[in-house]
Amino acid sequence: MTAIAPVLDTLDKNLDASLKRLFDLVKIPSISTDPAYAADCRCAAEWLVADLKSIGFEASLRDTEGHPMVVGHHAGPKDAPHILFYGHYDVQPVDPLNLWRDDPFEAKVKEIDSVKVITGRGSADDKGQLMTFVEACRAYKQVHGQLPCEVTILFEGEEESGSRSLKPFLDANAKELTADFAMVCDTGMQNRETPSICVALRGLVGEEITVKAANRDLHSGMYGGAAANPIRILAKILADVHDETGRVTIPGFYDGVEETPSQVLAQWNNLGETFETFLGPVGLSIPSGEKGRSLHELVWARPTAEFNGVTGGYTGAGFKTVIAAQASSKISFRLVHKQDPVKIREAFRAFVRERIPADCTVEFEEHGGSPALQLSYDSPFLSKAKAALSDEWPKPTVVTAMGGSIPIVGDFKRVLGMESLLVGFGLDDDCIHSPNEKYDLSSFHKGQRSWARILDAISKG
Amino acid sequence: MTAIAPVLDTLDKNLDASLKRLFDLVKIPSISTDPAYAADCRCAAEWLVADLKSIGFEASLRDTEGHPMVVGHHAGPKDAPHILFYGHYDVQPVDPLNLWRDDPFEAKVKEIDSVKVITGRGSADDKGQLMTFVEACRAYKQVHGQLPCEVTILFEGEEESGSRSLKPFLDANAKELTADFAMVCDTGMQNRETPSICVALRGLVGEEITVKAANRDLHSGMYGGAAANPIRILAKILADVHDETGRVTIPGFYDGVEETPSQVLAQWNNLGETFETFLGPVGLSIPSGEKGRSLHELVWARPTAEFNGVTGGYTGAGFKTVIAAQASSKISFRLVHKQDPVKIREAFRAFVRERIPADCTVEFEEHGGSPALQLSYDSPFLSKAKAALSDEWPKPTVVTAMGGSIPIVGDFKRVLGMESLLVGFGLDDDCIHSPNEKYDLSSFHKGQRSWARILDAISKG
Repeated sequence: MTAIAPVLDTLDKNLDASLKRLFDLVKIPSISTDPAYAADCRCAAEWLVADLKSIGFEASLRDTEGHPMVVGHHAGPKDAPHILFYGHYDVQPVDPLNLWRDDPFEAKVKEIDSVKVITGRGSADDKGQLMTFVEACRAYKQVHGQLPCEVTILFEGEEESGSRSLKPFLDANAKELTADFAMVCDTGMQNRETPSICVALRGLVGEEITVKAANRDLHSGMYGGAAANPIRILAKILADVHDETGRVTIPGFYDGVEETPSQVLAQWNNLGETFETFLGPVGLSIPSGEKGRSLHELVWARPTAEFNGVTGGYTGAGFKTVIAAQASSKISFRLVHKQDPVKIREAFRAFVRERIPADCTVEFEEHGGSPALQLSYDSPFLSKAKAALSDEWPKPTVVTAMGGSIPIVGDFKRVLGMESLLVGFGLDDDCIHSPNEKYDLSSFHKGQRSWARILDAISKG
Repeated sequence: MTAIAPVLDTLDKNLDASLKRLFDLVKIPSISTDPAYAADCRCAAEWLVADLKSIGFEASLRDTEGHPMVVGHHAGPKDAPHILFYGHYDVQPVDPLNLWRDDPFEAKVKEIDSVKVITGRGSADDKGQLMTFVEACRAYKQVHGQLPCEVTILFEGEEESGSRSLKPFLDANAKELTADFAMVCDTGMQNRETPSICVALRGLVGEEITVKAANRDLHSGMYGGAAANPIRILAKILADVHDETGRVTIPGFYDGVEETPSQVLAQWNNLGETFETFLGPVGLSIPSGEKGRSLHELVWARPTAEFNGVTGGYTGAGFKTVIAAQASSKISFRLVHKQDPVKIREAFRAFVRERIPADCTVEFEEHGGSPALQLSYDSPFLSKAKAALSDEWPKPTVVTAMGGSIPIVGDFKRVLGMESLLVGFGLDDDCIHSPNEKYDLSSFHKGQRSWARILDAISKG
């Protein structure tokens, strides 16, 4: 038996040093969706390679057609399981910058409402999270001179921008990356006291449509009433996507959607969250989705269509009486169960084309797609990880689902034949993807301790 | 009877001298929107005061909070009508300068495709136009020693930058500026051979709405299906504004809209323009307005609702799975006949508020409003001016309307109780507001002759 206690002690003692490392990583603005930050993405990957090497991993930066991957290998005891750990080093854009209270790329620890938090873009999603695992490995190695199991690490740099290189990379390196199972740290806890392991993930189809009308901007006094207005055409398309009950009207959209078993719904209803507790903190109260569904069903087990952005015409200060030449919208569909992303995209495009006047055109841009994932409830790794997390946190682990997509989990399943455990320490108020992203200091610290416990637990028979 | 023929002869003989005066005026870069040119605006006003005095006008520069006005008075024979002539001496900016083939402030006559044109910023809009009237007065005075009617002149210096001082100036000087009717020279001809007088102008209501939902941007995976999406709410509002036939659905919107007399519609239909000729050059072909209405009815005599801008969520390159905190749109309504801008704005706001979920809010910003203007068809001044223009040009005068607004005409009506005749000699290819503005030499020369004929005609019983 290895002793886990000294590893936990070491993590406690090393907390300040681990924070300094995280701050260094946050400082690199690795915004993957904006080509202007390509060099920064590479820089973040190089930083991680160097850090993994310092622990004793055989680590390397691996070029792709997009941002590079980081791959690291570390041997384990004979007959111990082999795990693949996944995280991503890229982050979301930071606009609007004026809403940030602190510099998004100068992480620091500060106290907000008596809670110590780490500020900065990526502090939670996903730099802070992936470093919890790295720090657990570092401490384990420092105390025991080895890791309790064989560990392969994969850090991606395109998670926030469609993960275009991921599938080709897994295909090309399937043998090297296949392990007994994967552990993914890109999710959150049920609440500050209750750890959770996620077993279902919604899929995603990202689309951008651009409606084009006149060959130039027109004066709305001269042409208004005669010329097609692309904003009007776009608004009609978007308005048609949902009916009065909140259902999506695109033909075939619900093909493959299953009803969630009643005992699962009952468990979710016992989690203590209501529309009021869920929506209240963001200033809302009324569910906007399909009528007659419970909160967790809506966000975990029902598909959605959301408009993520819209732009057209004059959007500056003041007024301009223009009829724009074009208008566009970014739209995402969250998929569940067996919905087919390819068919959904095709059905949506047909739905849009039907609504374009004969003298106008529409262009589509694809922004990624992946099916939903439903993991098995009876994996032994799941029960060991549940127990290990329950040891660390005040309340027992709950098994949940997630509204967001983590394409990697589907790819691990389909390309590498591996199931994944989704364990993360984010909190609902972390403001990921928003200004003022933060990660609780306890998420970072107890997250490291959690991974040490999980590594220890799964290495035991 | 005064003789008009010697006045026309004098205009022909004086053409070169009149060109030299226009070139001197164009040389002064009176760009009103840019504070750097404030002294030039004043200089242009002073130049006009001096020129009017040289003809015998009692003229003065009148300071405002913005650029100065020029006011001139000249007596006429007893019992002759009293007219107010309006033009503006300020011009649009000239950027991008590199697209100009000639110096924008060094006017000259050159031949383009066998047509002699006057080049330069303001050559058409509005220095060339206003000087056609001044030259007609000069020649009339030179030949007859007097003018055929009493003339008050008002030249504005802020037409291209919002006319902020105009209404206060009219209010403060209502008695001095009120005449029997106004003549405004800031419009164009139907084509090179056909003069036109505009009798109707659409009004305008400008509104900006901002729909606010959550108190911050949300992750669409985490909140999608539960949280209100302001882009979806906005799209539904915009989509609801028009019905399937292109009619605006806002309750009361059509109050005050009249049917255009069939003989007027017939005349418009004979102008030789179709949806194809009108929309073809901008790449369109299908009318977007109310079904069953003709081209000129739609753009001149029917009200519209146009979306001039829309923005919300992530609009940069790539993709961001965000549910935005807010989304907004700039919307303009073109009004006709007796539509009330105040009631239209109120009706629209009520229409919007009805569509805002109880946990969301909407904010409105007003961007100006003015009613439509319909001049009377049976004014004796109109018929006299029509006949005078028909005498000068190859084809008979057409009576038209305009889709855009000219605020001065509304102010003359409301503040001074005067109707206006809109007569101008611009052409569609004059490139006003663009690089390479020009004014046809025939517009300038025959424009002077036209005004001499109009002054002569209206002075006769």
